[in-house]
Order: sequence, then C-alpha cells, then structure tokens
Amino acid sequence: MDFVNYFPVWGKLTPAQQSRILGSVMSRTVKKGTVIHNGSEECTGLLLIKSGQLRAYILSEEGREITIYRLFDRDMCLFSASCMLRSIQFEVVIEAEKDTELWIIPSEVYKGIMEESAPAANYTNELMAARFSDVMWLIEQIMWKSLDKRVADFLLEEASIEESRELKITHEAIANHLGTHREVITRMLRYFQSEGMVQLSRGLVRITDEEKLRFALARGFRSVL
Amino acid sequence: MDFVNYFPVWGKLTPAQQSRILGSVMSRTVKKGTVIHNGSEECTGLLLIKSGQLRAYILSEEGREITIYRLFDRDMCLFSASCMLRSIQFEVVIEAEKDTELWIIPSEVYKGIMEESAPAANYTNELMAARFSDVMWLIEQIMWKSLDKRVADFLLEEASIEESRELKITHEAIANHLGTHREVITRMLRYFQSEGMVQLSRGLVRITDEEKLRFALARGFRSVL
Repeated sequence: MDFVNYFPVWGKLTPAQQSRILGSVMSRTVKKGTVIHNGSEECTGLLLIKSGQLRAYILSEEGREITIYRLFDRDMCLFSASCMLRSIQFEVVIEAEKDTELWIIPSEVYKGIMEESAPAANYTNELMAARFSDVMWLIEQIMWKSLDKRVADFLLEEASIEESRELKITHEAIANHLGTHREVITRMLRYFQSEGMVQLSRGLVRITDEEKLRFALARGFRSVL
Repeated sequence: MDFVNYFPVWGKLTPAQQSRILGSVMSRTVKKGTVIHNGSEECTGLLLIKSGQLRAYILSEEGREITIYRLFDRDMCLFSASCMLRSIQFEVVIEAEKDTELWIIPSEVYKGIMEESAPAANYTNELMAARFSDVMWLIEQIMWKSLDKRVADFLLEEASIEESRELKITHEAIANHLGTHREVITRMLRYFQSEGMVQLSRGLVRITDEEKLRFALARGFRSVL
C-alpha cells in the first residue's frame, strides 16, 4: 500500500501499531473547494496528503477569513484531529484549494498510538512546531508589514506554487487569504497595475513584471492607501 | 525536593529519567525586568516557574514588541528550549514581569527524556498546544478586534492578575504588550479617562469604573481614533 511510504515514522512503530493504522485508515479524494474540516464539527481525523493542496483558515464572527497555513503533498494536518489534544482551544477550517487525494487516520487511533509511542508523539511535536512557526510568521506579517508588501508577497508565492505568472484568483479570494476586504485588495492591485507590475482581468491576475514586484517588495512601495 | 511536586508527569518517568533530571536541574531567582531568554542566544533550557510571572514577546526589526503569552506559577516555558525542536523557526524573548523563582532543566536532558518517554513527549505536546491556543487567540484579537477593546481587555486582565484596580504600568509598557505605539495608547487612555472609566497619573492607571469598562468592552466603544 502506497500509504506506508507516505506515513512518517512508520518504521518506528510496532507491527501492532502499524496494523491498527492500516485497519482504520481511509482513502478519500476531494474536489477543489470542498471544506474537509470545519472547526465546530466533529473530529475529522489526521489528514495525510498524497497529492493536492489544502488551506487552513480561521473565521471571524462576521465571516471574514484569514489563511493561517497551507499544506501540500506529503504534509500531515494535525488540527483536523484537534480533539486529540485537549489544550487546543481554537477552531480552524480546512478546505481543499486543489483537487486533493488524501488519507484520513481516525483521531482515536492516532491518539492511542501517540500515547504509547514516543516516536509518534515526538513526530507530532515537530508537526505542531512547524505549524506554530507558520503562525508566528503570520503574526509578524500582520503586525509589522504593510499590506502592499503582504499582497506582493502573496502574489509571488502563488506564482511559485502554481509555477505560472497567470494566477486564476479573485480579489475576494486574495482578501480572504490576507484577512482584509475585497475593496482594499482591488485598490492595491489597481495601483500595482498602474505601476506595470500586474495586469488585471476578470478572475485573473497576471504578473507582468516580476522583477519590479520583487524590487518593490524589498525596497518598499510608495504609500498607496 | 520541592521541584518534584512542580514537575508534571514526574510519576510517569522511570527512576533513571528522574535522576537525570534531578542531577541537572538548576534553581534560579530572577529580578523583575530580567531578560531570561533572548531568541538569538543559546538554548536556555526548559523553565519551570515556582512563583512569579514571565512574559514572552516578539520583536520587530524596528524594536517594536508584542506580547504573545504570559506564564505564571507552575507553568512551564517550552520556547526557551526551542533548540529541542528543529521545526521551531521563530524567536521569542522571555522576560520576568515580577521577581520570579524558577527551575531550569537543560534542553539536551529534556530532549533525551522526551525521545524515550511517550508521557513526556505527550505532555510537551499539550504544552505546545496550549501556547498555540494563546497565539491563535492573539491573531483573532489583532485581526478582528479594535484597539480600544484590546486596551480595555488588557486593563481588566491586569487588574485580575494584580488583584488591584491600581495598575503600576506605563503607556509605553501597554503599547509593548499590544504591539502598538505609546502615543496611540496615551490617546486611548485619555479617552477612557474622559469617559470616567480610568484615572491617569504618572506610571499609574487606576480603573475607576470597572463596570462601565466591561460594558463598553462588550457593547463597543465609540470610535475614538
């Protein structure tokens, strides 16, 4: 089974632990846009991504969003199994950003193994530490970085993920990633366009001068808002 | 030794693990204001607080601060031993907010025990999850909550920690907790004062109408900035 090659610390589990996982793991394919886990619902389980892309975000009471991290091939999603750890007191939504193939390990199975296996528990520690680093990076962005730089950063990151300068993304979606309003993003992108860095059309942002965008990111944009 | 009663999961460690900890733990008393751990320095070790109060904060390149969490009696500080976990890619500063008595467990000792002991590793997981929840709370505050509410929240929290309505704190210190500028805090506090909720004097904020402050926090302040 393919799964065994994707699951970390597999070789450090006992045969009994391995068979408990193999006996309970489920394979699932989800379409882009599917909400796989919604904070307020039941414990979905640990997600292991075979291929695809997931986004974890939080929601305000008014329905505003901000992306807290993204997961790619071979990544494992811990917070969809947050019921495993009683100290987790927050809710995230996990959504497929692309068609995604994944495995789901039931929370109680993983929890049981973690309780008896130091390697599994330590791996989980590293996993949480990695997400913690993502979130600390986000705080620094929000606190100390102006929005123009965050938008430029996001566009360049998207281009790198998609391996394309033609980004099929709406202003609304960018706003939801960055935790701001669509109008603010539209104004910012129009400024970028007026500076020749991007070209806008419906549902599309094309990076026309990546170097200039990088330069502006490093050296600072003129204040535009 | 008192330490044994403070250290969590002590009973779940083997005698050999217990003696490794007892043979390496150091006791230390630090004065209010001491920086115990500075992100860029060496790995300080795991801190276990006997009594006192610590503050963990991050610094911007320009020297601005924001408090990410605080620790009290019996709390354990993990990020002063962040070298234990290679996935931790951020730096925090740990400072004593009050005179503090604590124990320091060397990082390599704790790491070694965590690697062989599932209970120790799982406890560390819960510890990190608790700090993760603090940080997620902070993101929600920064993103969705206006600064007037954050200031009111902070004053009420301080009053609860200090068990006093007379808070010996400067506007600068409040700004450093909340990641903003002193001038902004001064303006906000003057508005609170004009509304009869606080009384200001040098280095002192006295809460004069706690109920009104709570009410404003719940129902919203007039926009003041």
